Amino acid sequence: MSDSTKNQELAKDGWTAVPRAQSKILANVDKNKPAKISVDNIKLPNSDIARKTQAYAKKELPEKTYNHSMRVYYYGAAIVKYHFPEFESFLETYFLTCMLHDIGTTETNINATRLSFEFSGGFLALNLLQQLGASKSQAESVCEAIIRHQDLGDSGNITSVGQLVQLATVFDNVGMNPTLIDKSTIDSVTEAYPRNKWTSCFAATIREELALKPWSHTTAIDGFAEMVEANVLMEPWD
Amino acid sequence: MSDSTKNQELAKDGWTAVPRAQSKILANVDKNKPAKISVDNIKLPNSDIARKTQAYAKKELPEKTYNHSMRVYYYGAAIVKYHFPEFESFLETYFLTCMLHDIGTTETNINATRLSFEFSGGFLALNLLQQLGASKSQAESVCEAIIRHQDLGDSGNITSVGQLVQLATVFDNVGMNPTLIDKSTIDSVTEAYPRNKWTSCFAATIREELALKPWSHTTAIDGFAEMVEANVLMEPWD
Repeated sequence: MSDSTKNQELAKDGWTAVPRAQSKILANVDKNKPAKISVDNIKLPNSDIARKTQAYAKKELPEKTYNHSMRVYYYGAAIVKYHFPEFESFLETYFLTCMLHDIGTTETNINATRLSFEFSGGFLALNLLQQLGASKSQAESVCEAIIRHQDLGDSGNITSVGQLVQLATVFDNVGMNPTLIDKSTIDSVTEAYPRNKWTSCFAATIREELALKPWSHTTAIDGFAEMVEANVLMEPWD
Repeated sequence: MSDSTKNQELAKDGWTAVPRAQSKILANVDKNKPAKISVDNIKLPNSDIARKTQAYAKKELPEKTYNHSMRVYYYGAAIVKYHFPEFESFLETYFLTCMLHDIGTTETNINATRLSFEFSGGFLALNLLQQLGASKSQAESVCEAIIRHQDLGDSGNITSVGQLVQLATVFDNVGMNPTLIDKSTIDSVTEAYPRNKWTSCFAATIREELALKPWSHTTAIDGFAEMVEANVLMEPWD
């Protein structure tokens, strides 16, 4: 593969290293300019792989989890368009990541394995996406991001896709970094994909993972279920 | 599966939750009683799966990495026999984990993927072990431990197999917690499986992973290569 082809692939699949620490990645983001955009102005990726993966997610995920996954896409896309335009190149890969990041939490999947849900979900995504026609590079990028999507911390690096899914999931799940996105955007996103009490639903999923798998990686986030329940930002839309 | 059968499986495959923080897991370990045992008094697991996995590791790993993997088994077994006898039940699962924990670092494997080596290694182990006849439960336990074997931290829990492989690898690689194991044990283990300059070899592997994959999970350990090079404990045997 030529250098030029390889660099295009890296950019399209989100294989760039960014700091894992939110304080570093958000250091230059203007807190007074939250992303203000309607879902009508955010196109979904239109490729074959995007449509097939979305159809899979819609079929396999409970409605609330599917809605959360779609919101995470829109929030991430809004963050990209306003704050990280250089990430625009991998929005398709990001979309696939959003669709599958919680696939490990379905009733079937959470009970089918003792693996931490991020790991079983990453593994499932790696296989599924290649079966659906994605390149190995893209499937691996999604897998890496899913495995690390709850691996918040201050040290080292992570893929750009991985950082984006962390930012968007904790925005939706915990209300973290509220200045990233304007309330009008939240209005638009939650109207299209309602929360329907996602707060208590996700807190219950966390507790289910911890009960089934007391060794799991979710335990690394102290008091995660309580943090989710304290999501003040999203209360008006919950 | 009856409760009794399930509990036996959990114990044999190392599916028990222990604190991830070394300060907690080692809180009751007597610093004045380092594990004193010769390799002649530590039996290797004798099962079909153990022998096949060992043969695979011996064939695939470079000699230095294979020797490190064997040392990690002996150090972990010594730690169990002296400090955590309740872990004796899963030593076979631990052995499989040792054999495969660095399988992601071979020249072939490190260049075959953009995934962090712990993740690609974990998936390889998950598939390989089941092909070799291991149960899904045991293969998953090995996979979970390999994925998290460089995931040191102070919060939450980890599987008991995962904690043991963390303790034994950082003992061999960094000289951490030197009071766990007696120098006579190190004599015996390194005589059977010499380091042959493992310190510089492993530091080079870390740098290779970071160069190929600047986003990888290894970046989470600040200054890891330098920490390995500063392994004062193992200098006399390096």
